Amino acid sequence: MKFCSVCGAGVRVGVPEGDNRPRHICDHCGIVHYRNPKVVAGCIAAWEDRVLMCRRAIEPRLGRWTVPAGFMENDETTYQAALRETLEEANARVEIDDLFVTVNLPHISQVYLLFRGRLLDLDFSPGAESLEVELLAEADMPWDEMAFPTVTEALKLYFSDRAQGVFPVHMLDIIREGAAGNYSVRRIS
Amino acid sequence: MKFCSVCGAGVRVGVPEGDNRPRHICDHCGIVHYRNPKVVAGCIAAWEDRVLMCRRAIEPRLGRWTVPAGFMENDETTYQAALRETLEEANARVEIDDLFVTVNLPHISQVYLLFRGRLLDLDFSPGAESLEVELLAEADMPWDEMAFPTVTEALKLYFSDRAQGVFPVHMLDIIREGAAGNYSVRRIS
Repeated sequence: MKFCSVCGAGVRVGVPEGDNRPRHICDHCGIVHYRNPKVVAGCIAAWEDRVLMCRRAIEPRLGRWTVPAGFMENDETTYQAALRETLEEANARVEIDDLFVTVNLPHISQVYLLFRGRLLDLDFSPGAESLEVELLAEADMPWDEMAFPTVTEALKLYFSDRAQGVFPVHMLDIIREGAAGNYSVRRIS
Repeated sequence: MKFCSVCGAGVRVGVPEGDNRPRHICDHCGIVHYRNPKVVAGCIAAWEDRVLMCRRAIEPRLGRWTVPAGFMENDETTYQAALRETLEEANARVEIDDLFVTVNLPHISQVYLLFRGRLLDLDFSPGAESLEVELLAEADMPWDEMAFPTVTEALKLYFSDRAQGVFPVHMLDIIREGAAGNYSVRRIS
């Protein structure tokens, strides 16, 4: 950020009075521009023992697999965002059962909220952001071709819970370790 | 938003190619400026049968009561944000037990994540944004002087769950109904 989005003047970085961290401040119109984490909402959508998976048609991670998920928009709820993303990416209709996991990714200032849901019918197909959409059983999951660690970790938890017949709400941290896409996982609950 | 924060040129509102909703677009540098909901993180911090409550020293709702909560910052996790807000508003140290409730407020594009926690000691005091900080039992809660419906609804759920000895993770929608601060509550889970 170099310019004030309200008045167009140049902004400076400084700690506003009464605050304790640097912000982008416009001295011309007096506005402080805050930056906050983004919510990614998505859905683990089941049909019998299989889960709806999308192969990405867009960067990042083009060609890799994910559950339907994307940035939450203004004016919607978290689960509405999950339903919308499932419709957009897989042309699929889902009923949400409950929140499944919140995943903190502080290094990219994102919070994932992934829900458990059930496909309402088998009339699904790739949306504009997907190359393929498939129902995949645990044994057929492309673990080495997952798009994001969040997806890998959430699905591992999901299959583990399903085997035990209980679905508590989980919380995970995914922490970047150095470069090259390495990360560590902290299971908080 | 009237000006591009990257290059300072005027922005227009339009639907970008491949998108399906209006955004602020800069035709000069080509950037699309997205706006997304904000996360508010907070803590229901217990000491025996009482809960830590703060009377607000700032607008909005100056003089009214809330649990410690505030906007999540970049580079932190949701529960770190809850701990930070509890320290800033009440100078109180807390151990988080688990997520308690997610509250959707689509009319103001906010998502609350409130955690259950336990005060580690009784050394608390008003932070800069609080007039008073008190440990209050259910019978002493100032229900008519709460700052936000989110706080009222979360505390009602909390005391109800506590009476039953179980704390599932809940999800609520708080929907504005007309003007004058009226709202309806949808309990999703």
